[in-house]
Amino acid sequence: MLDFEYYTPTKVFFGKGREKEVGKIISQYGYKKIMLQYGKGSIKKNGLYDCIINLLKEYDIEFVEMGGVEPNPKIEFVREAVHIAKREGVELVLAVGGGSVIDAAKYTALGAVTDCDVWDFVVGKQKPTSALPVACVLTIAAAGSEMSWSAVVSDLSLNMKRGLASDLIRPLFAVCNPELTYTVSSYQTACGITDIMAHTMERYFTPCEPTDITDQISEGILRSVINAARVVMKEPNNYEARANIMWASSLSHNNLTGCGRINSLPVHQLEHAVSGEYDNVAHGAGLAVLFPAWAKYVYTYNIPRFAQFARNVWGVNEVDDKKAAELGIESMTEFFKSIGMPSTLREFGINLDAIDKLTDLCTFNNTRTVDSVIKLGSKEIKDIFKLCC
Amino acid sequence: MLDFEYYTPTKVFFGKGREKEVGKIISQYGYKKIMLQYGKGSIKKNGLYDCIINLLKEYDIEFVEMGGVEPNPKIEFVREAVHIAKREGVELVLAVGGGSVIDAAKYTALGAVTDCDVWDFVVGKQKPTSALPVACVLTIAAAGSEMSWSAVVSDLSLNMKRGLASDLIRPLFAVCNPELTYTVSSYQTACGITDIMAHTMERYFTPCEPTDITDQISEGILRSVINAARVVMKEPNNYEARANIMWASSLSHNNLTGCGRINSLPVHQLEHAVSGEYDNVAHGAGLAVLFPAWAKYVYTYNIPRFAQFARNVWGVNEVDDKKAAELGIESMTEFFKSIGMPSTLREFGINLDAIDKLTDLCTFNNTRTVDSVIKLGSKEIKDIFKLCC
Repeated sequence: MLDFEYYTPTKVFFGKGREKEVGKIISQYGYKKIMLQYGKGSIKKNGLYDCIINLLKEYDIEFVEMGGVEPNPKIEFVREAVHIAKREGVELVLAVGGGSVIDAAKYTALGAVTDCDVWDFVVGKQKPTSALPVACVLTIAAAGSEMSWSAVVSDLSLNMKRGLASDLIRPLFAVCNPELTYTVSSYQTACGITDIMAHTMERYFTPCEPTDITDQISEGILRSVINAARVVMKEPNNYEARANIMWASSLSHNNLTGCGRINSLPVHQLEHAVSGEYDNVAHGAGLAVLFPAWAKYVYTYNIPRFAQFARNVWGVNEVDDKKAAELGIESMTEFFKSIGMPSTLREFGINLDAIDKLTDLCTFNNTRTVDSVIKLGSKEIKDIFKLCC
Repeated sequence: MLDFEYYTPTKVFFGKGREKEVGKIISQYGYKKIMLQYGKGSIKKNGLYDCIINLLKEYDIEFVEMGGVEPNPKIEFVREAVHIAKREGVELVLAVGGGSVIDAAKYTALGAVTDCDVWDFVVGKQKPTSALPVACVLTIAAAGSEMSWSAVVSDLSLNMKRGLASDLIRPLFAVCNPELTYTVSSYQTACGITDIMAHTMERYFTPCEPTDITDQISEGILRSVINAARVVMKEPNNYEARANIMWASSLSHNNLTGCGRINSLPVHQLEHAVSGEYDNVAHGAGLAVLFPAWAKYVYTYNIPRFAQFARNVWGVNEVDDKKAAELGIESMTEFFKSIGMPSTLREFGINLDAIDKLTDLCTFNNTRTVDSVIKLGSKEIKDIFKLCC
């Protein structure tokens, strides 16, 4: 077990109807003026927007609004939000939405207390030293941003989708009501499930010694997500299934499943290149294509690990390690298909011609490798993209 | 899944030699004057005391010392510590030790910012509203106090061992180096293992619907502790085994294993009566006697749950639920024996004559029942104690 630090200060309010407590919660923390951020307006249709606004008014909490966060949030949005947050003297940024909205709020929180441009933090020119508190009401179980220390943002003018990680942006609190995800489409639900599983699976496969307790927890979370996924695809309003998926979302990306292990997310690095370049690729759908391809490419370098994964996550009953490993990857591939995920990049209109560009994006023009079961350089990444076409 | 709140703000610094960072960590938090608490002096023999003192000096952190915390910490110690902490203007209480030392520090932290007597918090006469920050360097994996919101204290003059729970006393940070537990005796290690398992098992058996993700995590942690226990009994210096047990200690009692479930610790309630009355009973040893007796007494009221426990934790391969449940309890009983734990109260010189007294202590003189798989009143508690004799 490698040395690690574990820090998850986010207070989670989990359960039915808990969004109704958001006014009281903010008030108890003592904040008087906040910025409310949300996405493309689905919260206006389902009543959540009105609910939150009324609660803020009831508790005399002033607010400014920034709606319109896009999937894969954009740096322009963040810059404008930062400008307004500074001008208005906002004390907390409340995201009502999924991972993209929370990520935009995190960057807003970093930008609001500095004169630097936020992008400087993203590309490592500057190091953040403080941030406004961020909080959220979660509406999609997927990214795990509600408890995580990371956030992703895109600059389309540079064709770059990048992330940063800092304990400064771990949310202060997260309100998680699984009922709010009943209306998430089957496709988006499946994308979320894939993202959640990837967060745990990528930590599981990082190249280091097995870590029994973290392995047991990770395998258990994965089995639970798989169980719940099979239910929720048939019964979108099944509370237990939605609740298991939502809690798995938070636990899969707050680093619990990385304790004692090397924390790198290689398949996420590959996928960011794809959904950064192609706005029609949902992050989870990209992962569903890339994960099996990546696994097929690297599994021979750590057959015992992939065999353990096959047996403990997918119930593969096969004594030969190599065969077990292959059956595990097959089970995963079939599972993603069974929940309606794509299995090739062609399904997004991406073909072999795109691979050089995607590889350059992923390797930052051949200036970095991606740590994985093996180190992935341009050649390996190109090969994996090829397997996806 | 029941509604829940999850809040574990403690920053954990886990790994080899990490106690050497304690000066730097305190300094980064900005504290200049602390109270150092520790137990009966084992840290003076093994060099940990000198290490900590030198680090405090190196980082110009003033400190006052309160050594001598006893197993089952006493309220008189706490009162004296509170007096000194106030007089000296202490800003943080650093516990170097196991659960008893951390618990004493928690009560000191509550008392140092109030004019109330700390015991008033324990018996519910007053409600705590603030506390000094508490931190710890953990030397025994057992109680889970390093990340928990609870603490236990005894008033021998009243013959009472009681606890309280408050987010105010969750440690600010915990330094967890498994190497520091190499010298913990085989008996104390086994007591710790039992306590860790009880923290997870009691939450597992609370009377509510199954919660798949929490069940999977709990079963995984238990399997990991059992695996590690078998190793550590033969190889006390096995780092991986010690590390798995130490991390399980924190995760078993920070409420991760209670998410979505009713949180009550019925067997702990029974045991507190025993070790509160008999100072020769180590808490974990008392649990090792009581848990199998309790399980045998209640399992027929929830056979499917005990069968799940048997199959998923102990690998019992039996299709009949009742038989499986019984085999699971048998496996647990044998496991506790195998790590050197007692299986009767007689081994402590406690016999049938003591049962009325113990029952009165546990039921606060027949004024409360204990929630469990079934509600335990005086009659049931007496029956369970009888099974232990």
